[in-house]
Amino acid sequence: MYKALITTVPFGDKNTYPLDLLDDNNIEYLINPLNKKLTEDELVSLVSDFDVIIAGTEQISDKVMEKASNLKMISRVGIGLDSVNLLAAKKRNIQVSYTPDAPAPAVAELTIGMMLMLLRSVHVSNSQMHSGEWYRFFGRRLSEVTIGIIGVGRIGQGVLEHLKGFGSPKILINDTSVKDDISNRFNVEWSTKEGIYKQSDIVSLHLPLTGKTKNMIKRNHLFSMKKDAIIINTSRGGIINESDLYEVMQSGHLSGAAIDVFDNEPYSGDLKNIERCLLTAHMGSMSIDCRTRMEIEATEEAVRFLTGKTLKGLVPEEEYEVQRQGL
Amino acid sequence: MYKALITTVPFGDKNTYPLDLLDDNNIEYLINPLNKKLTEDELVSLVSDFDVIIAGTEQISDKVMEKASNLKMISRVGIGLDSVNLLAAKKRNIQVSYTPDAPAPAVAELTIGMMLMLLRSVHVSNSQMHSGEWYRFFGRRLSEVTIGIIGVGRIGQGVLEHLKGFGSPKILINDTSVKDDISNRFNVEWSTKEGIYKQSDIVSLHLPLTGKTKNMIKRNHLFSMKKDAIIINTSRGGIINESDLYEVMQSGHLSGAAIDVFDNEPYSGDLKNIERCLLTAHMGSMSIDCRTRMEIEATEEAVRFLTGKTLKGLVPEEEYEVQRQGL
Repeated sequence: MYKALITTVPFGDKNTYPLDLLDDNNIEYLINPLNKKLTEDELVSLVSDFDVIIAGTEQISDKVMEKASNLKMISRVGIGLDSVNLLAAKKRNIQVSYTPDAPAPAVAELTIGMMLMLLRSVHVSNSQMHSGEWYRFFGRRLSEVTIGIIGVGRIGQGVLEHLKGFGSPKILINDTSVKDDISNRFNVEWSTKEGIYKQSDIVSLHLPLTGKTKNMIKRNHLFSMKKDAIIINTSRGGIINESDLYEVMQSGHLSGAAIDVFDNEPYSGDLKNIERCLLTAHMGSMSIDCRTRMEIEATEEAVRFLTGKTLKGLVPEEEYEVQRQGL
Repeated sequence: MYKALITTVPFGDKNTYPLDLLDDNNIEYLINPLNKKLTEDELVSLVSDFDVIIAGTEQISDKVMEKASNLKMISRVGIGLDSVNLLAAKKRNIQVSYTPDAPAPAVAELTIGMMLMLLRSVHVSNSQMHSGEWYRFFGRRLSEVTIGIIGVGRIGQGVLEHLKGFGSPKILINDTSVKDDISNRFNVEWSTKEGIYKQSDIVSLHLPLTGKTKNMIKRNHLFSMKKDAIIINTSRGGIINESDLYEVMQSGHLSGAAIDVFDNEPYSGDLKNIERCLLTAHMGSMSIDCRTRMEIEATEEAVRFLTGKTLKGLVPEEEYEVQRQGL
């Protein structure tokens, strides 16, 4: 009997189909008993014995794989591959699949909600009202500002699609890998990252975490943004340097930030002391429909693997290349 | 020299053109010295001597007008007329103008932001994260839910316009006065109010406060909504009975509410004890562009009146009829 370790939590919560599927295929499973994102050591202590991991964003390092002597496949619930050492997996003949399309709609919608909240200081007013204070904040409308989107893959394009219903904001985009000319489908201008930092009222990040994007936005980039600009990160912790963001906002620069992803999750760092910093608990993909789709797709892929069927979500070679070159 | 009392605050804050316009026309003005929404008595004590009021949402009652022996014109900064006793004004030959188009874009955008926040529990996660708690809330996407819009005038139609960029949510609408068949322009279905309460996951109100809409949504209506439904009021306080809403949410019914308008403002009532109730300080129209447009339009109208020009924003007869019939 094959064994699957499900590390991502919650799992099978709103829809039990993925668990039923494992049962129906006689695959034994264990759902992460610590009910939180696992550290490398915690994963090491759990992982021996399992044939597949249906994985969240915890680090699946060479050390983890070394301990996982039965491991033959990793099925990522989601799109990011920064947590998986793809080269170590290849070396050990461990296949890796993912669900790159499923989370995009939920992340794109959350991003628009964050833009609207930050532009109108809704989160700050809400905190104040709950403490019995009344202050009418001025805000701006989307069509009045310049929006910079860094990363126009699946999620960034979803954001652009939603923005179509909000008049004609000026939109600057940047992407180093998207090739098709999306400026045919959207009313956007290509720009450099530096141009986006300088000119935008809102900067939103929709990038993978790689060697190239880690710490991409540091103190000097944040200070090059307008004093009343807004920054949104619903992609991966680590792309904006967290302590730099804290320092810059503490100094009074930037009118707001929305941060859904952190270096270490669960997060409980200094940003919580900044009222105008909107913080959420890595909830980008957490709409019931997208989360369910991610869980089902990742589980179906694991079942396909264990029952000898052709895989549909194998991570493409270019993702290995990114890690090989430390990009 | 004519004298204008400006009761709405803030005023001329982001753009001084309205104040310059008064200066240029030799109109003396006083901006509300209490810097908050005035009570009837406070307004009575201020109002004698002024020829026009450039007015916010404070009550301009018969008692106020009786004391305002020079008053010849009221120019409302905004759309709602619930605060102005139109019949008393007519009796005393006081003209009333308003700026019905200016606030709509800002209110419509805020409403979409609130929908997205409530669907994803962003406000609750933000409070929790600022207290060092981490919980990943499940949410829903707009295209997965049924949205009920009560009132499809200027603001309701703005909301429908924005929703076009979010796939195809099922949208139910209700309006007792809009005649043109907006279902040609939007993918919507007409419904009764009761049908909207029962079937919607989100109910959003875009109505004037009148005899007919005051306390329109009471305990039984709220309980007829789905247990996990959401209600949004960015129109006028008093349309949802505040203490009923508190009681119903306190009992665990409704998954969220966003309330921007209150019976008494500044608000400091019981709803602040309900974490999943998103509260804002009457900020619907508070985008810089819309607020500026409202202030300019209302001031230009006052200047037109005092310089003998033709008025452009006179309140139409049907608004008098609404008050006459207590509708």
